[in-house]
Amino acid sequence: MTLSEEIVDRASVASADVAEYATWLGDDALILAQQLGWWISRAPELEEDIALGNIALDLIGHARSLLHYAGTASGRSEDDLAYFRDEPEFRCVHLVEQPNGDFAHTIVRQLLISVYLFELYRRLAGSADPTLAAIAGKAVKEVDYHRDHASQWILRLALGTEESRARLLVALNDLWPYIDELFQDEPLHDALPGIAIRPSELRGAFDRVLADLFAEAQLDEPRTPIATGGGRRGQHSEYLGYLLTEMQVLARRHPGATW
Amino acid sequence: MTLSEEIVDRASVASADVAEYATWLGDDALILAQQLGWWISRAPELEEDIALGNIALDLIGHARSLLHYAGTASGRSEDDLAYFRDEPEFRCVHLVEQPNGDFAHTIVRQLLISVYLFELYRRLAGSADPTLAAIAGKAVKEVDYHRDHASQWILRLALGTEESRARLLVALNDLWPYIDELFQDEPLHDALPGIAIRPSELRGAFDRVLADLFAEAQLDEPRTPIATGGGRRGQHSEYLGYLLTEMQVLARRHPGATW
Repeated sequence: MTLSEEIVDRASVASADVAEYATWLGDDALILAQQLGWWISRAPELEEDIALGNIALDLIGHARSLLHYAGTASGRSEDDLAYFRDEPEFRCVHLVEQPNGDFAHTIVRQLLISVYLFELYRRLAGSADPTLAAIAGKAVKEVDYHRDHASQWILRLALGTEESRARLLVALNDLWPYIDELFQDEPLHDALPGIAIRPSELRGAFDRVLADLFAEAQLDEPRTPIATGGGRRGQHSEYLGYLLTEMQVLARRHPGATW
Repeated sequence: MTLSEEIVDRASVASADVAEYATWLGDDALILAQQLGWWISRAPELEEDIALGNIALDLIGHARSLLHYAGTASGRSEDDLAYFRDEPEFRCVHLVEQPNGDFAHTIVRQLLISVYLFELYRRLAGSADPTLAAIAGKAVKEVDYHRDHASQWILRLALGTEESRARLLVALNDLWPYIDELFQDEPLHDALPGIAIRPSELRGAFDRVLADLFAEAQLDEPRTPIATGGGRRGQHSEYLGYLLTEMQVLARRHPGATW
């Protein structure tokens, strides 16, 4: 945690647009981390408890760095942004809000978001904003491991038993509609040339990585309708409210953290 | 996770008594880890999410090594022991079964168990059983950090606000009755001379560490009745059943882990 914090130069202050962009990325990491934390001691193997727990902690680290930087624009701390914003103020995509479901759903969600984040952070590491570049440069190494972890599981589930494959297919169908939102360009991206990465530019690399994995796993790309999205504008799925209530109740009941 | 696994020499097979002893220690770590995992994304600070999450993962690592070694006596895997034993077969002490409560309860439970485990593992690192010695030698370094983390929080809560101190005092009173069980010698300890550590031998060091901390925190030792204990014989508090249900439901619903 100290490392991920130290790379945020405490002297740099984000502009309003950069802060908004950092909030988008920070919220994705924060909400996904909260979902994964649920698996600690609940996964079907102790080794997997530890793997998913470590991924959750990596993501909280990313969220902390990004929300700390976002908060410099308004004088708010990362904890303030995490625990004292209401649902319409969150900016995460719907994919990370989707429930853990069974293990296959969790792994498919991990695959899709990790492949996306790897391509995003790899490019963001060259951002003209040095703080975003530093955060992304550190995060991309961790997300590379997350992507590998999910890919190995996809192969194991796809080529395992009849039931593991059937469950994987259900999970792919359930989560596929939420991919589209990841790659939608927004006016904010246009307002931050050289700083933000245009999501539409990531789609080609994302599709190629998935196509290779799906070939190896003998899977076809699902054909599903596209979900509406809207997370970047504060329009969220039915699940986010419950997640936030759980995440925020203690901090809100005892503001100031140490009573 | 690989590290903690590698120190268990896969060729060494525990005797029945050593396996039982390893199960006692492994169950303490496993149940405590499950409780701490709850805090991921729920602590009042993101930094604390990460700290408690890391402690939980350390403990799962210890549980894995200990239960793996225990399982060599009967040909069962660590996952089998974690997910497919019923409540009366668990051997954890009642202290680790006590609920998270508010943050002060979690921290007091952490303090008591970490000070105890530090003294235990420090001595067990010199055990005549090389596998137990190796597991303890690695775990003691992590438990040393857990102890320090809890101690710092005790000071912060004790010397913080009026409410933080009041909550700490309640937590100390609630958890103090469960200390006694930690130091009860059992026939198994007599059956493993030079291998197991007699818990009664740890009490002096435990009391000295707490006395120093309590002096700095301006706290008095609580005067409470002693709880009955019985965890080492499979007699558990009302809380363990719920914990096990949550922990085991997925593995039991889909035995074989990958369906």
